[in-house]
Amino acid sequence: MKRIDLNCDMGESFGAYKLGMDEEVIKLITSANIACGFHAGDPNVMDRTVKMAKENNVGIGVHMGFPDLLGFGRRNMDVSYQELVNYNIYQIGALEAFCRKHDVKIQHIKPHGNMNNMADTDRVIAEAIVDSVLMVLPGIPIFVKPGSELHKLSEEKNVPFILEIFADRAYNKNGTLVSRKIPGAVIKDPKLAAQNVVRMVVDGKVRTIEGDMIEMSGESICVHGDTQGSLEIIRYLRSELEKAGVQIVPIGQTAEEVR
Amino acid sequence: MKRIDLNCDMGESFGAYKLGMDEEVIKLITSANIACGFHAGDPNVMDRTVKMAKENNVGIGVHMGFPDLLGFGRRNMDVSYQELVNYNIYQIGALEAFCRKHDVKIQHIKPHGNMNNMADTDRVIAEAIVDSVLMVLPGIPIFVKPGSELHKLSEEKNVPFILEIFADRAYNKNGTLVSRKIPGAVIKDPKLAAQNVVRMVVDGKVRTIEGDMIEMSGESICVHGDTQGSLEIIRYLRSELEKAGVQIVPIGQTAEEVR
Amino acid sequence: MKRIDLNCDMGESFGAYKLGMDEEVIKLITSANIACGFHAGDPNVMDRTVKMAKENNVGIGVHMGFPDLLGFGRRNMDVSYQELVNYNIYQIGALEAFCRKHDVKIQHIKPHGNMNNMADTDRVIAEAIVDSVLMVLPGIPIFVKPGSELHKLSEEKNVPFILEIFADRAYNKNGTLVSRKIPGAVIKDPKLAAQNVVRMVVDGKVRTIEGDMIEMSGESICVHGDTQGSLEIIRYLRSELEKAGVQIVPIGQTAEEVR
Amino acid sequence: MKRIDLNCDMGESFGAYKLGMDEEVIKLITSANIACGFHAGDPNVMDRTVKMAKENNVGIGVHMGFPDLLGFGRRNMDVSYQELVNYNIYQIGALEAFCRKHDVKIQHIKPHGNMNNMADTDRVIAEAIVDSVLMVLPGIPIFVKPGSELHKLSEEKNVPFILEIFADRAYNKNGTLVSRKIPGAVIKDPKLAAQNVVRMVVDGKVRTIEGDMIEMSGESICVHGDTQGSLEIIRYLRSELEKAGVQIVPIGQTAEEVR
Repeated sequence: MKRIDLNCDMGESFGAYKLGMDEEVIKLITSANIACGFHAGDPNVMDRTVKMAKENNVGIGVHMGFPDLLGFGRRNMDVSYQELVNYNIYQIGALEAFCRKHDVKIQHIKPHGNMNNMADTDRVIAEAIVDSVLMVLPGIPIFVKPGSELHKLSEEKNVPFILEIFADRAYNKNGTLVSRKIPGAVIKDPKLAAQNVVRMVVDGKVRTIEGDMIEMSGESICVHGDTQGSLEIIRYLRSELEKAGVQIVPIGQTAEEVR
Repeated sequence: MKRIDLNCDMGESFGAYKLGMDEEVIKLITSANIACGFHAGDPNVMDRTVKMAKENNVGIGVHMGFPDLLGFGRRNMDVSYQELVNYNIYQIGALEAFCRKHDVKIQHIKPHGNMNNMADTDRVIAEAIVDSVLMVLPGIPIFVKPGSELHKLSEEKNVPFILEIFADRAYNKNGTLVSRKIPGAVIKDPKLAAQNVVRMVVDGKVRTIEGDMIEMSGESICVHGDTQGSLEIIRYLRSELEKAGVQIVPIGQTAEEVR
Repeated sequence: MKRIDLNCDMGESFGAYKLGMDEEVIKLITSANIACGFHAGDPNVMDRTVKMAKENNVGIGVHMGFPDLLGFGRRNMDVSYQELVNYNIYQIGALEAFCRKHDVKIQHIKPHGNMNNMADTDRVIAEAIVDSVLMVLPGIPIFVKPGSELHKLSEEKNVPFILEIFADRAYNKNGTLVSRKIPGAVIKDPKLAAQNVVRMVVDGKVRTIEGDMIEMSGESICVHGDTQGSLEIIRYLRSELEKAGVQIVPIGQTAEEVR
Repeated sequence: MKRIDLNCDMGESFGAYKLGMDEEVIKLITSANIACGFHAGDPNVMDRTVKMAKENNVGIGVHMGFPDLLGFGRRNMDVSYQELVNYNIYQIGALEAFCRKHDVKIQHIKPHGNMNNMADTDRVIAEAIVDSVLMVLPGIPIFVKPGSELHKLSEEKNVPFILEIFADRAYNKNGTLVSRKIPGAVIKDPKLAAQNVVRMVVDGKVRTIEGDMIEMSGESICVHGDTQGSLEIIRYLRSELEKAGVQIVPIGQTAEEVR
């Protein structure tokens, strides 16, 4: 029986600002990527989100971002290896303290926004991410996009990783994601998205933007929970996966199955 | 043989801004209170400071402050119990991750600036500090001023604490510090400061601002390292303590002696 | 014919964070209090909000707040007269530059959240607000609560002011607002709120929380626009005012009428 | 008689953090580039610095930077045209309000750090700078490096500009500055620096890093004031310029001479 994990960004509210429908999303996913106060989130939000994830048996991930609240971590940042290692260690430690308060373990690491995007191709950024994890959370897996530098460096350095697949994004022939700048990069039709995901999970294949069928599989699906519409998409995706006989479980069990 | 610890605030630089003479102070003290990025400090500074403390066998303390870089944590903050618990847990975790990177343990907790000052008399603030330590660093001692609410709550909640005495501050009859607003509150003469400290450490007594002699002893002396002059004061204090036969050692050994 | 102004806080979004229903509220009010980047708002939001206010013929106000994004300016701040003067001058200048870009004038000043609340009773805070306006925007009126220190200082220093009345708050016998901590302080029934407002505007009277009728009138009504429900309240208030023959116009014309 | 302006960055302190020797530098220069709270500076520092510049008859410049206090505005920033226009308008307005308080006018604009560096070659960044000035401070000159995109756009858009020359930097054959990454880019010998500057000011020529003599002249020399050593360099430069018969005056008079 096939198994898959559903991961979603959470804990992105800040002070009086509310972002995301965390209370509802948490019931639909199996892994939560929790912001750590740099690109989003604050200590009170982190506390609430860790507690909520534990209560819902959802795996907790460090969702570290660039120190740029104004840009929500969605701008490339001109940051050295040493700086990024330290930014990440800081955020990992902060989230881990809330996990200790709530007596729960960190399940995974997933860099946020443009830190993650830069790590697709920038070896220095990717290495800083992998090394920061090795230094303070050895053994905890990193979510990686297949074929990214982050993927390669995790393999090279023997850091456990989780291959992530995307419901709403088109793929290139070489297995990378089509740039958002290219028309057709984002799949808006929920049915097509669900069909793609089920095929990746069940058959280990995806049809690329050019129309070829390539091998593509993963252990976690990235979903979004910002709007009422995105909740509907997650619900539909879950029902299609269940119809296809796929079990939706946290990555601990998923990873075992796939490898 | 009497023993005493010397503690000093460190790691207060931020980005391009340098504050304090950490490289020189570190050789003269036994405990470092390290800023955690809220009132001062940043991830790179924390990394360097933890490393430097370890190399110099100086005990590492969490110096958590209010989230107010502009005010350097030196303004009272209108913060709830729950908020302060979370601000402190966040900072404790962040510093601890750097300690893990450098394979060293946190020795103590000392709240910074007005968080510490508010905890002299504000029971809610004091309780938030004590509880945050209990939640994520149980067993690690808190530096407290004799007679403060922070002192009382540490006792009530059975949290280990270190009594802190001050070289450059005058005392009231009831053992509290004379408010900085009152003339004579700050002792500027190094000789008088050293004389006071030696008397507290050796005889367990201090002459109050009114002239009475009261009982006062502690396990750690608070010193400052911002200027060339302050370095001279620490050196003079060290030599006077040594002349009086007092050993200057980290609090682990001091505490044992005093209790 | 009676005239009244409706003012509402606006431009409180920040980066990726959206707060308030500005696009809809702007059509229902006559004066906008625009955040200036300290407690809320950012340069892009300020630009959009000034443009939108101009297009809707809505008067533009400087809504300066404490430098505390995390607390949304809703925490008392331990700030000196000199600091607050400078914080306010900074924010006034920043907003004014966007007004110059869009070729529109600043109509009024209204301090935000706890800066405003502190100015009810704290003479230093109130004086810093009034003096900052005198220094860089002389002649521009400040929104004041009747009987507040801000009201008194505006009178003493001959700074023009606009008396503000509140639709959803109960009044004490002496004309001040009932503290939010006391039951009954906030009026949740839209009909009662509208009735109160119409009576203040038309008859210059309000029934206090104790049941007495006192004199109370003003030139601007403070409304809120955060939720769909609050929009409904503004719409209802407008229709009741219009039924009572009150004209809803910006303060320029209102003030003339009342004085 | 030849004339030249000396400009220096100022007002870069922040809260408890002191940077630069402003009180001494101000007596040696003719134009001050004043930080506006994004990369450095705060409202209190801005107030003090504007006051000090006025008292010393030093021209006041808007020294706007990227919103990155942690990186001191010395990191490239991934910012859109629209965002940068608004960041700059905000900072211009904030500084201008302090100028109004002290009854003095803004003399010039000089982008800080990497905003300036990016504008050497990035047309979007350069255009955002020029347009923000056109929108809210038309007629105020921008300091530009000869040959930079900022220089070209100022010419194209008919914005007045001031050519800036550098005492401590080597030049390429095409008149641009040698990248700091190349050995020899920074001139550390005060005598050589002074010789270069005097030649540029008196003869309108400079010897490039390759040894050729090219035409190079300007209206303002960029100097630094962070250390005791840098103060010595300014003093030496001043004396060499005066020996060569050059008058050191603010740009108002310089520009007239050169054009």
